[in-house]
Amino acid sequence: MSLRSETLELTCDLISRPSVTPEDAGCQELLIGRLEKLGFKIERLPFEEVTNFWARRGTEGPLFCFAGHTDVVPSGPAEQWTHPPFEPTEVEGYLYGRGAADMKGSIAAFMTALERFIANHPEHEGSISLLITSDEEGPFVNGTTRVIDHLEARNEKIDWCIVGEPSSTDKVGDVIKNGRRGSLSGTLKVRGIQGHVAYPHLVRNPIHEAAPALAELSSTTWDQGNDFFPPTSFQISNIHAGTGATNVVPGEVEVAFNFRFSTETTADELKQRVCDILTRHGLDWDIDWILSGNPFLTSAGSLVDASREAIRAVTGNETELSTSGGTSDGRFIAPTGAQVVELGPVNATIHKIDERVRIADLDTLSAVYENILARLLVKS
Amino acid sequence: MSLRSETLELTCDLISRPSVTPEDAGCQELLIGRLEKLGFKIERLPFEEVTNFWARRGTEGPLFCFAGHTDVVPSGPAEQWTHPPFEPTEVEGYLYGRGAADMKGSIAAFMTALERFIANHPEHEGSISLLITSDEEGPFVNGTTRVIDHLEARNEKIDWCIVGEPSSTDKVGDVIKNGRRGSLSGTLKVRGIQGHVAYPHLVRNPIHEAAPALAELSSTTWDQGNDFFPPTSFQISNIHAGTGATNVVPGEVEVAFNFRFSTETTADELKQRVCDILTRHGLDWDIDWILSGNPFLTSAGSLVDASREAIRAVTGNETELSTSGGTSDGRFIAPTGAQVVELGPVNATIHKIDERVRIADLDTLSAVYENILARLLVKS
Ligand SMILES: [Zn+2]
Ligand SMILES: [Zn+2]
Repeated sequence: MSLRSETLELTCDLISRPSVTPEDAGCQELLIGRLEKLGFKIERLPFEEVTNFWARRGTEGPLFCFAGHTDVVPSGPAEQWTHPPFEPTEVEGYLYGRGAADMKGSIAAFMTALERFIANHPEHEGSISLLITSDEEGPFVNGTTRVIDHLEARNEKIDWCIVGEPSSTDKVGDVIKNGRRGSLSGTLKVRGIQGHVAYPHLVRNPIHEAAPALAELSSTTWDQGNDFFPPTSFQISNIHAGTGATNVVPGEVEVAFNFRFSTETTADELKQRVCDILTRHGLDWDIDWILSGNPFLTSAGSLVDASREAIRAVTGNETELSTSGGTSDGRFIAPTGAQVVELGPVNATIHKIDERVRIADLDTLSAVYENILARLLVKS
Repeated sequence: MSLRSETLELTCDLISRPSVTPEDAGCQELLIGRLEKLGFKIERLPFEEVTNFWARRGTEGPLFCFAGHTDVVPSGPAEQWTHPPFEPTEVEGYLYGRGAADMKGSIAAFMTALERFIANHPEHEGSISLLITSDEEGPFVNGTTRVIDHLEARNEKIDWCIVGEPSSTDKVGDVIKNGRRGSLSGTLKVRGIQGHVAYPHLVRNPIHEAAPALAELSSTTWDQGNDFFPPTSFQISNIHAGTGATNVVPGEVEVAFNFRFSTETTADELKQRVCDILTRHGLDWDIDWILSGNPFLTSAGSLVDASREAIRAVTGNETELSTSGGTSDGRFIAPTGAQVVELGPVNATIHKIDERVRIADLDTLSAVYENILARLLVKS
């Protein structure tokens, strides 16, 4: 059996288990069985409805970690798929199925990389670990963040973390994410005094009062970004006021907004600046804030170097560092002091109908992961 | 039987007919029966589901008209009423029931005024008419405006029109409306480009783009008003954008607004100024306009004089001229060149639970109407 088919076979086995968040559908026990054979010590860490595990081989530092998720987003209407979403199907060099790219292919690639690496280097330096959750696509409350809390409580520190998220744009490894912007959301309510449009002296129109403040928020430059991050952006996603009656001035307007922010500012600074603007405009307001994640950055160091060199060695291609896109579980791992890089397959079809991965890319990715392990954990 | 009880009895008879718009529930036939006895020529003018009639006594000018509506707004939850809404109930000097104040009391008061006046002045000057609809509280498409079209088509011109709307604030006749502001509504759509909040360079946020324009519209002084009208006012009643998803920038924002405008401007001027502001802000926009009514004013003349003098003669009180409040069917009558005044009972409870009228006010109002007829149609 070739190396290629082992990664492909494991990917197919994982796809055929319909692990829609927070379901794991047996994916993790499949992995655990293979990890135990490699000498990993397993800690099953279920929290509420979420299945997680932490596996570690070795007791010494430095500690390398592969972080990933077995859960997938729902398939959407199955009849819109060319092939059934939970029946892995190989067509013209592609493997179709929900999770093929995000991220069952990455998990399979890392598992086979690990099997080869340990066969060749049973006495590697440091330790290797896996942090696997079934709650990355969901509310991310009982997944990675809880496992990290558990590790922090006993002062177990990850030095290098590869997150298997599909980071690539056209070819495996053409882009890796060495950080992510922060995400800060707010729900703003501006209150006025409701009344009939025919009696303007009796109302205070909250839409009128909010408009200049919203204009200022929309046109504010929050920072200039830096070498690794684009400028912090502010976007209003929803605004609602009024009951539909066209002769009534509403008593309140509600505005939902989101910041994607760089390391040039902080959530607290953004909150303060928003508050200052609203207050300066004399509004009667309040905001519910939700901080989804602070920005993190692994700007340079042994993990970024090993990743770039491994990609160059396996594919011959150069790698672009990026901090764009949405959030990932990296935001929970980076604050512990770990270097964090996201490296996985091409992300063009993730979360879509007919999600798929190029079959050849699975082995390329596995070879890259193996190469990284060798660079970090084998004395030259 | 006293005069007092005739007006009260007719009001009760009308209230007990549940004539929720566009239903007439037999109210008009009751009136027609009494008008025919007084020598009125009746034209029944039903349009679609709306019942209307035009009644005229005399063929000469000048032509006096009483305009009113037999329909009422829905009662709302009947169990919240102290007395059943369509069972007229007399308690402590008040008559309760839907339509007591708006405007079955006025109609009854005018009918009894007419009966006394014609008994005393069978050979009055000019002509007397009634324009009665069952569509004043509804879409006002097949009511007064259609009857006016019918009269205009044969060049039948009203000189003086009393509209029986409840104009009074504390006492009968303390306020009469000698005009109304215009009402111009618009539904504005501003288009942008939808996208994910994490990719701000790919979106054009229509809320951000609209905000400065809305701020300018909200703070614009449209005119200063004049002796009869307050300044033109602009109010946004509804604003909606976004599907609820907080990570998506919507493609469009929809804004409903309304002008109440004075005779210092016109609907066309307002439209042009709004368009200029939106265009200057570089928006991709369109507006659906609805002109509910142009402003009208009966600033001075024999009808205002007769009304004020009649009120003073009957009640001893002075009258305030006002153009405030919502719209009325006067907007359809005034453009024909008629002098129009709204004069009716106290409006504190109209359209509310427990609508009521002070019983004594019904006879006062009847006496005022009779006095006006005498001032206008009897040679002194
Ligand atoms: Zn993922
Ligand atoms: Zn009315």
